[in-house]
Amino acid sequence: METVPRRGLMLVLSSPSGAGKTTIARRLLDEDAGIAPSISHTTRQKRRGEVDGKDYHFVDKDVFSQMRDHGAFLEWAVVFDNYYGTTRAPVDKALGAGRDVLFDVDWQGAGALRDTAGEDVVSVFILPPSAEALAERLRTRAQDSEEVVSQRMRGASNEIQHWDEYDYVVVNFDVDQSVAAVRAILAAERLKRGRLTGLEAFVQGLLSSL
Amino acid sequence: METVPRRGLMLVLSSPSGAGKTTIARRLLDEDAGIAPSISHTTRQKRRGEVDGKDYHFVDKDVFSQMRDHGAFLEWAVVFDNYYGTTRAPVDKALGAGRDVLFDVDWQGAGALRDTAGEDVVSVFILPPSAEALAERLRTRAQDSEEVVSQRMRGASNEIQHWDEYDYVVVNFDVDQSVAAVRAILAAERLKRGRLTGLEAFVQGLLSSL
Repeated sequence: METVPRRGLMLVLSSPSGAGKTTIARRLLDEDAGIAPSISHTTRQKRRGEVDGKDYHFVDKDVFSQMRDHGAFLEWAVVFDNYYGTTRAPVDKALGAGRDVLFDVDWQGAGALRDTAGEDVVSVFILPPSAEALAERLRTRAQDSEEVVSQRMRGASNEIQHWDEYDYVVVNFDVDQSVAAVRAILAAERLKRGRLTGLEAFVQGLLSSL
Repeated sequence: METVPRRGLMLVLSSPSGAGKTTIARRLLDEDAGIAPSISHTTRQKRRGEVDGKDYHFVDKDVFSQMRDHGAFLEWAVVFDNYYGTTRAPVDKALGAGRDVLFDVDWQGAGALRDTAGEDVVSVFILPPSAEALAERLRTRAQDSEEVVSQRMRGASNEIQHWDEYDYVVVNFDVDQSVAAVRAILAAERLKRGRLTGLEAFVQGLLSSL
C-alpha cells in the first residue's frame, strides 16, 4: 500500500472502568501494526502476571523522582500513593517515525497529554450504553471485590463528567461496532493534512510534472 | 444499530478533474444511505442524459438572480458564463435531521462553503498519484477532446495548489483504498463530540442512574 510520509499521532482513550475500553484497546493493538501501546513507568507493586517493560516499567520512588526532575515525563500523576508517568523519548521517536501510540489514561492523564502534546493528541471517550450495563460489567470481573465495584461506580460518575473534553465520543452499545468506530477515527486522523509531513514534497513533484 | 442523535455534516470533496473524485463520490453515495448529494442550481444547458432535479436544478438566469438576491444560496459562482449555486434550505433540513450532504465542488466552492457553514464542513482534497496518471485518465474519457484535456491539465495545476486549505488529503493510489479512506473520514467525523447533539441528554440520563 502506497502512502505519503506522515507524523504519528497519540490516540488517547479514556472511559470509566467497565465501559469496555481495555477490550477495545487490545483489539486495536492486535489488528493494527501501526499502533503500539505507551508503556508507563510506575512505582506500584507488580501484580501477578504483569511483565516489567511490557505492562509497565516498574521503578522505585527515587528513580521516578529523578526522572521527573529531569523532565523525562510527558505527564505524571499520583494515584493511591503510587506514581505513574509517561516518558517523552519513546513517544517522540515513534511519532517522528510515523508510528502511532495508544494511551489508556483517565481524564487527568488525557488533560496533561493535551497540554504538553497538543495537536499530536486525538482523544476518544468511551461511554457505557447504560448504568445497568456498567454495573454488570464491573461485577463480572472476577478479580474485583464488591467494595471495589462500589468504589468504581462512584469513580465512574466522576470520570463520565469529563466526556466533553474529548475530540470524539463512542457509546459502546456493541464492542465490534466500537472497535470499528475507533479504527475509523484512527484511519481518518492519519489523513489529516497537518500530519502528512511528506505531502508538500509530493505536491511539488506533481506540480513540476504537469 | 443504536446511535446517539447527531447533526449531519457537509462532506466537501475537491480535486482536479481526472483524479477520481467522481468515482469515489458515486461509490460513497451508493454504499451509504446516510449521505445524499447536494443538487446545485445552474443556468447552463442540460447535457444529454442529465436529469433535472437529479443532476442539477436547471433554471434560467432570471430565476437564478432572484434566488441569489433573496439569499437562497449557501454559495454560488460563475463558470464560463454559467451560474452555479447551492441552495441553503435543503442542506439545513438534512443537517438538522442527522443526514449528511456530499458536495462535489472546486476550491472556490469549498472556500465559500467553509465561510458560510464553518464547523458543519468536512473538506477532503483528492490528489492523483502522479501527473502521468492524471493525463492518462483525462485522455481515456471518451467525451473529452484533446483541447479539453490540455485545458484541464492546466486547470489541474491551479486546483492542486489549494490542497493545503482542506482538512484531509487522500492520494488516490488505488480507488478502493481511497473510497475506504473517505468512508473512514465520514465515520470518524460522525463521532465528533460537537456533532453528537443527543449526547448531553444521554450522559445526564446515565449519571442520574449511577
